[in-house]
Amino acid sequence: MRKTKEQELPVLAVDLGGTKIITAIISNKGQMLAREHCLTLADEGPPSVINRILSAIDRLLGQRGINSSQLGSISIAAAGAINVEKGLVTSSPNLPGWHDIPLRDIIKDKYGITTFLINDANAAALGEHHFGAGKGVDNLIYLTISTGIGGGIIINGKLYSGLCGSAGEIGHMTIDVNGPRCNCGNIGCWEMLASGTAVAKEAIRRLSQGESSSLTEIVGGRMEDITAEKVSMAAQGGDSLASEVILTAATYLGVGMVNLVNIFNPEMIIVGGGMAKMGNLLLNPARQVVRERAFPLSAPAVRIVPAQLGDDAGAFGASAFAFQQQTGRAE
Amino acid sequence: MRKTKEQELPVLAVDLGGTKIITAIISNKGQMLAREHCLTLADEGPPSVINRILSAIDRLLGQRGINSSQLGSISIAAAGAINVEKGLVTSSPNLPGWHDIPLRDIIKDKYGITTFLINDANAAALGEHHFGAGKGVDNLIYLTISTGIGGGIIINGKLYSGLCGSAGEIGHMTIDVNGPRCNCGNIGCWEMLASGTAVAKEAIRRLSQGESSSLTEIVGGRMEDITAEKVSMAAQGGDSLASEVILTAATYLGVGMVNLVNIFNPEMIIVGGGMAKMGNLLLNPARQVVRERAFPLSAPAVRIVPAQLGDDAGAFGASAFAFQQQTGRAE
Repeated sequence: MRKTKEQELPVLAVDLGGTKIITAIISNKGQMLAREHCLTLADEGPPSVINRILSAIDRLLGQRGINSSQLGSISIAAAGAINVEKGLVTSSPNLPGWHDIPLRDIIKDKYGITTFLINDANAAALGEHHFGAGKGVDNLIYLTISTGIGGGIIINGKLYSGLCGSAGEIGHMTIDVNGPRCNCGNIGCWEMLASGTAVAKEAIRRLSQGESSSLTEIVGGRMEDITAEKVSMAAQGGDSLASEVILTAATYLGVGMVNLVNIFNPEMIIVGGGMAKMGNLLLNPARQVVRERAFPLSAPAVRIVPAQLGDDAGAFGASAFAFQQQTGRAE
Repeated sequence: MRKTKEQELPVLAVDLGGTKIITAIISNKGQMLAREHCLTLADEGPPSVINRILSAIDRLLGQRGINSSQLGSISIAAAGAINVEKGLVTSSPNLPGWHDIPLRDIIKDKYGITTFLINDANAAALGEHHFGAGKGVDNLIYLTISTGIGGGIIINGKLYSGLCGSAGEIGHMTIDVNGPRCNCGNIGCWEMLASGTAVAKEAIRRLSQGESSSLTEIVGGRMEDITAEKVSMAAQGGDSLASEVILTAATYLGVGMVNLVNIFNPEMIIVGGGMAKMGNLLLNPARQVVRERAFPLSAPAVRIVPAQLGDDAGAFGASAFAFQQQTGRAE
C-alpha cells in the first residue's frame, strides 16, 4: 500500500482539557514539530473556549509560518463524552456548558481541512500505544487516574470505541454495589474509590474524625486544600495515615484492574494521569491484588506500567487517530 | 477471495459440558447435518470422558457413513479455562480432574485432521453471532447464566479472546468489593449475586429465616432441592418471596450489565444459559437498571435479548470458529 500525500503531511493536534489547551504539530513519524499550551478558562463557557482554541491554532501555524493546506488534518482530543460520528462534544464534567457542541465542524469550517474529534482518554490510549509505554503492544487498556478515572481500550492495535464512540468508560463500573451514587448516575463506581478525589476525600474523612497526620501541617490546617498530591507527599515523608489512605485507594485500584484482567486478558495496563506520579507507591499494591485475585492464566500475563507521555499523550494520540483514519481511507 | 476445498467441507463440532457431550456435523452454511448427545459422566475422570468423546465422534461419523477426510476440521468447545495456543483444558470447575489435558492434540492425533479447542462460552458467543440472536451484529457480549456466569466478547465480528485466550471471564468481575470470596479467588464476583446458584441460595437463606413461600411445597420440604428453575416456577405462580428473590438477582444482573455497557458500548447483550428461560421476568428489571444507570449515549443503544440457539450454541459456535480460522489461514 502506497502512502498518499495526505498521509505524509503532519497533523495539527489539539488536546482540550478542563484546565489547559495543548496544541501541537506532529509528524507521521510521531515527532512533535511544534507545541504550545494555554489555559482553557473553561468557566467562561463554550464560545470563549472555542475562540481560544482557534487563536491557539492560528498562533501555532503563524509561529511555524505554515498554513492549513500544509497539514494532513486537524485532530482534537476533548475531555468529555463525544459523539464521534457527528463530531459533537455531547457533555463534559470539566467543560461547563458544553452540550452537543459541534466542535469538529466548527474547526473544519474555519480551516477547510479534514478534522477529527475523539475523547481525550481514548486519544491518550492511542498515544501511549503508538508512541509511549504501549509501543508494539496490540491489546492494552489505558487508564488515566486524576479527579476521575478515564480509559481507552486498544484491541488489535486499534482504538475500540464501541457502537456510538462511547466505550472505555472504565471508571464507571460498579465495584461497590452498596456504595454511594456517582455523579454519572451509577452506583459505587470505581472512580469513587480509586481516583485522586477518593484519596483526598478519605484523608479528609479520617482527619475530621480526629486522627492525626502531618497532612494538617502541610495544608496549614486548611482541610479543603488536601489533594491526592499532598497525601502522596505526606506518605513519602513517612506519614502513616497518608500511607494507609494511599494503600486503600491502591487496593481498590487493583480490584478494578482484576475486573479488566478477567474481562480482557490484556497484555498491558498503562496507568497515566496525575495519580500515576505516585509510581510504585500506588502500582505495587494494585499489582499484588491482581496477582492474588485475577484468573491464573491472565494474572501473570499482564504488565501494569506507568504511562510515558505525560501531558502530551492526548495530543500524540489525536495525531495517531488521524493517521490511522487517513490510512484506513486510503486502503 | 476463493474458498478452498477445506472451507467448503463441514465441521464436526463437539460441545463438552459438565453434564453432556453434544456432537454435531455442521455445514459452512450453518446447517446441522447430524447431531447426537450423550452424558459426560464427568466424575469418572478425564480418560473415561475422553473415550466417551471419541466414541461419540465415531458413532456420528458411522451413522452418516463418512470418514474424517470428508471433514474440514474438528472443533471442540469445552467448559473450562482453555489454553488456545497449546490446545489444553487447563482447569474446569465442571470437569473434575481436568488439568492441562491436551484435548486438542488427542483428537487431532486420532483423526489426523485440523482440530480446534475453545472455551464453551466463547463458542456460544460465536454461535449466537453467526447463526442466532446476534446475526449481523458485529459488537456484542454474550452471557451464559446458569450455575455461574460465563461470557464471550465479539468485536468487529470476531471472537475477542485476549492474550492467552482467557478473555471473557465476565462473571468474575467484582461488583461487591465487600462481598464474600468466590471459588475463583476473587471477591464479590458478579456470578455470586446474579447466577442461578445465587437465586437458589438467596431463596434458601430467606426460607431458613422463617419466611414462607410456595417453594417449600414445590420441593416437598427438601430445601436442598431448591433450584433457580423452581424459584422461577414459584414466581410465575404468584409467590411473592420467589418474585422478590428473582428481582434481586435481576437487579444485580443489571448492575453487571451497566459495567459492560459503560466499558464496551456494545450493540447487543445476548443472554443464554438456564436462567435465560425466565425471559422477561429476569431481563426486564435488568434492562431497567441499565436504562437508569448506564451512560446516556450507551444505555439506549444496547439491545438486551435472549439467546436463540439454546443448548446448541456451543456446537454451532465451535463450527463458526473453525470456519473463521480456516478462512483466516486461506487469506
